[in-house]
Parts: sequence; structure tokens; C-alpha cells
Amino acid sequence: MGTDQASGEFVREALGVAERITADGSSPWPVEPGRYRLVAARACPWANRIVIVRRLLGLEDAISMGIAGPLHDERSWRFHLDPGNVDPVLGVEWLREAYEKAVPGYDKGVTVPAMVEVASGKVATNAYAELEYDLATQWTAYHREGAPDLWPAEHLDEIGAVSEGIFHDVNNGVYKCGFAGTQAAYDKAFHALFSRLDELSDRLATRRYLVGDTITEADIRLWVTLARFDAAYHGHFKCNRHKLTEMPVLWAYARDLFQTPGFGDTIDVEQIKQHYYGVHTSVNPSGIVPLGPDTSVWLTPHGREELGGRPFGDGTPPPPPPEGERVPAIG
Amino acid sequence: MGTDQASGEFVREALGVAERITADGSSPWPVEPGRYRLVAARACPWANRIVIVRRLLGLEDAISMGIAGPLHDERSWRFHLDPGNVDPVLGVEWLREAYEKAVPGYDKGVTVPAMVEVASGKVATNAYAELEYDLATQWTAYHREGAPDLWPAEHLDEIGAVSEGIFHDVNNGVYKCGFAGTQAAYDKAFHALFSRLDELSDRLATRRYLVGDTITEADIRLWVTLARFDAAYHGHFKCNRHKLTEMPVLWAYARDLFQTPGFGDTIDVEQIKQHYYGVHTSVNPSGIVPLGPDTSVWLTPHGREELGGRPFGDGTPPPPPPEGERVPAIG
Repeated sequence: MGTDQASGEFVREALGVAERITADGSSPWPVEPGRYRLVAARACPWANRIVIVRRLLGLEDAISMGIAGPLHDERSWRFHLDPGNVDPVLGVEWLREAYEKAVPGYDKGVTVPAMVEVASGKVATNAYAELEYDLATQWTAYHREGAPDLWPAEHLDEIGAVSEGIFHDVNNGVYKCGFAGTQAAYDKAFHALFSRLDELSDRLATRRYLVGDTITEADIRLWVTLARFDAAYHGHFKCNRHKLTEMPVLWAYARDLFQTPGFGDTIDVEQIKQHYYGVHTSVNPSGIVPLGPDTSVWLTPHGREELGGRPFGDGTPPPPPPEGERVPAIG
Repeated sequence: MGTDQASGEFVREALGVAERITADGSSPWPVEPGRYRLVAARACPWANRIVIVRRLLGLEDAISMGIAGPLHDERSWRFHLDPGNVDPVLGVEWLREAYEKAVPGYDKGVTVPAMVEVASGKVATNAYAELEYDLATQWTAYHREGAPDLWPAEHLDEIGAVSEGIFHDVNNGVYKCGFAGTQAAYDKAFHALFSRLDELSDRLATRRYLVGDTITEADIRLWVTLARFDAAYHGHFKCNRHKLTEMPVLWAYARDLFQTPGFGDTIDVEQIKQHYYGVHTSVNPSGIVPLGPDTSVWLTPHGREELGGRPFGDGTPPPPPPEGERVPAIG
């Protein structure tokens, strides 16, 4: 990641290990339960997408999960929440080690989510968008009974179109605001972000979910940024036209999903705040982590049931997360 | 100003020229219309108090006003809004020059508000609390007809008690949050700030003003911090349990005063934001100024008339500010 010298605009670095994990033998990495460990971090919205998909599809038994802590330095994400600061399955302290096993002399970003082959300790892929889609389409043999269809065939084009705008202006847009190198680059990103949020708010005013009448990938994509909005992006990244709590439609939508199994039960607000305020010393030199905002409001009634919709379509909600993957209660 | 090395707590530096301007000959500086120029800055809450008192009492003709711009460096406040970057009456670019004329080798803080003797160019005082009280009690011969009594004799003790808490936990409290050198110092200041705001909110739930049934100095003191809360302190100083707009009683109270002549007509939100985000590079290294928050909400109905109260007591509202002292319309 970095800032373009001429424009001052934030540019997201290309991913370093863009492999696929497939069921049909078309890639070096086959679908196989127990073979991979998902490395995530509670702080990271890109990892959060995969964590939610894994929860909704019930892939916890097929793919174990390691959690890097919220703090890291230029070396990489680190397993500082684990005993001895070492992931108990991979046996490493720094996620960088798994990247270097895969690519000797690895010099690109050490990012989460990463799928690591347990036996070799190598990163198989950190291409989160492809991984997300592959979990839904390649790992079907290991989905739980009642797993929802997150990419309904009849809505693929619409999901793609909506998601594209969310990616550029919202998911990545908050970073463009926060890491802008010039006032002009910030202003441009700010306007794009809130214009897109206004458009999405209009869309969601009369429908419970973004596409069709069930939860799809587009909702997951938007939600991971909304879930971090007031805790991190509003203040730390200067995304401050309004708080999420001041945008009534989006706020009700975000609470609705927060209160849906598989969403709020993946969120650790403290780790989110520790990460953003603690790691980006160029934005927050003191490293001091704000005590606000009040988070109890996430559990207030949202009233979105009135709009109808079938959250999981013909499927069912996931059961609670397994022991060892539970997050602290909010509020 | 600085941070205590042991505790990490912000400590406000003592003022450098703590003289008085009196009507009875008890100080070197006599009350005399035209003799002094008030140097203020739209950004600064301490200056804002004096600017409001001058407006409410109608002292514009007796005491002229120079406005330092929102930006300054370690040298001092600077008249960068004026043609040629020079105050048209005092003929200086940097406010420091007026301090050095008063105290050769001056090595304390160059602060606003400052009362400068026009003829000599010397700062007479920067002791804002005493100055505020003296404008009300020593300059009475020059008050406008209908000037309110901001320190009613029957409420002096109560005003003092309420104001003391506001000073430490609110006016100065937001700075203690923003300039804390340790997490512990920040946490302490944050809790003191919001506990005090909760207490003041309870007090204001059933009464229109803090003391008695009219606007007093206590209201002015609280309001100058509330007026800057969402634009600067919420994000920049991490005072983020809630925005002012999320604290219903204080928000209605703040809007009520904003819409009262003498208050909102002293506020320039852009200068406030430019100052805090532009000057404190230790907090905001990029110097980028947020585009939010939305300020149009300041003009929405507040409903506080229902609580009764007589804003100006037996007095009257001040007329609009003189030409040359008008601020941009909000919204």
C-alpha cells in the first residue's frame, strides 16, 4: 500500500499470493478438509468477509482458524493473542514466516486473510475476493446443512455491479480518506464515499438487503465497513460527514445484520480500535486508543423485519461459533 | 502548555501578562474607550468567551477587535487573514510582537485573547478570566443600553461553583484528552469530561440556563466548548463517547444559544477546523482538515423555549455584529 506521489491518492497494493483453492484439480491447491488454516484478524475488514462466509456456510470443521492480534509492525501481523505469541497450529509468531515459506524473499504485503497449508506452513492464497467466492462454490461438499446461497445465480450480475461500487468507494474508500496525502485527494475520496453511502441508503430504504430478498455477498461486503465505521473510520480516517448512527437507513441495516447470527458474533470492537489507532502511527502518533464510541446501541431494535426478506433464503441461520472462536459480548 | 513527564497529563501553562484593566485606578491600565484593541481568533474558545461578552455588553465601539487567523506556528498567532498579513490597527504581523513590546525577551505563551494598548502596541493583559469579569464590572460606563447582567449578584457563588467544574473537566478537559501523553492520562480525562457533561445535562434537562433563569457567564463558558465539540474535539481530541448531536439535552441547549444573538454570530466553523487540524501536527501530522461534520443541524428547532427563562433578564438582545466582524453563514 502507499500513496501516489503525484496525486496524493491512496493506492492499494496488489496481493502477493493470488492462487486459487479448487475442487476440480484446476489449481495446485485442492479443496480438502483439515488441509488449510485460515489466518484472520478481528480488526481487518477484508478478513472479516471471509470469517463471515466461513460462519454462514458452516466451514468451521473443514477449515480451522488462527487469529492474529490487532497490533503489528512493519514486519507483519503477529499471533500476540496466543500463548507464547505463537499460533498453536502453524507454530509461527509472525505471519510473514508463512509467506516466506511460500515465496522465498517475499517482498509484498503480509495481509490477512491468508489460507495457509498446515503441513507445509505455506500460504496458499491471500486473494480474499477469489477465496470468498471459492468458499461458496468450490467447498460445497463441506457446507453445513442449511447453508445459504450467497451468490444466487439469478442475481450474479447485480451483485457484481453493486459490489464494485462498494469496493472502490466504501471498503477502499475509507482508506483513501485516511491515507490521503493531500487535501484534494482526501476531499475526492470523502465525496465519493458519502455519495455512495447515500445511494446505498436510498436503495436500502425500501428493501431489507442489497440484492434480491436474501443476504448476499454484497451485504457482507458493505457490512464489514459499516461495522467499523464509528469505531475507527469516522474519527481516525476523517470519514466524518455523519456517524453511521446518524444515517438512519444504513444504521438500521447495519444493526439488523449485526444481530443476525454470523455477523455480530465475528466482531471485536476493542481489537478494531487497537488496530487502527495503534498501528497507523502516521495518522495517530500517540497510539492512544479512544474510549468511545458507545457500542451498546448496536443491540437496539432496528425495525427492519417490516421490510420482509428472508435472511438465509431457503437455508437456516448458523449455530453459535465454536468454543475458542467467541468474541466478547458488546455493550 | 505541555505534558507532565511523569503522568502524561496535559498541563496548561500559566498566562504571561496577567494584568488588570480597571476603572478605579487600582492598576496601571485604566478603562478608556479607544485605548485598547482586543486580539482574538475565531478558532480559540478562550478568545470566544471574550468576544461573546463584548458582543452581549455592546462594547464594540469602546474596544476594537483584531482577528488573528486560524493558522500559526511556534512563533505565534499571525494576522494572515488581513491584507498584507498585518493587523490594520496594530501594524504587526505576529501577535508575538505585541507581547515582546510589553515584556522584553517574553518567553511564555503567546495567547489569545489579548488586550493590546493601541498607542504603545503593548499587551496589557491576556488573563482571559479576569478580563471577562472586568468587561462586565469595570467597563459599565460603556455598556450598551439593555446590556444583560452576566454575573447576577444573587448567583455569584453558584456561577463560580458551576464554572469551576466546567473549566477543569470541559474547557480544559478536551485538551487533556487530546494532548494526553499516556493512555492512562487520556482515560482519566475522558471519564472526567463525560461525567461532567452528564451532570450538566441533568442540570439542564429542566432549566433553560445553568444558573438562575437568564444567560450568565457559566453558560458562555460551557457553550464555547460545545460549539467546537463535533467539529474539533470529537475526532481530533478523541472526545468520542458521543457527538454533541447525540446528547439530546446539551445539543438542544447548544443550539438554543447558537441561535441567540451574540453566540452563533461569533462562530466560524471553518476557522475552528483549520486551526485544530492544521496547527497540532503532533496529533494530525498530515494537516488534512476533515470536510465533516454537517453543520446545517445547528439551525434546527431546539424547543427549549418551553422551559421558560429570560435570556437577557431585564435587558435586550444585542444588535447584529458591526460590518467587518461578521462571520460566514452556517449550513
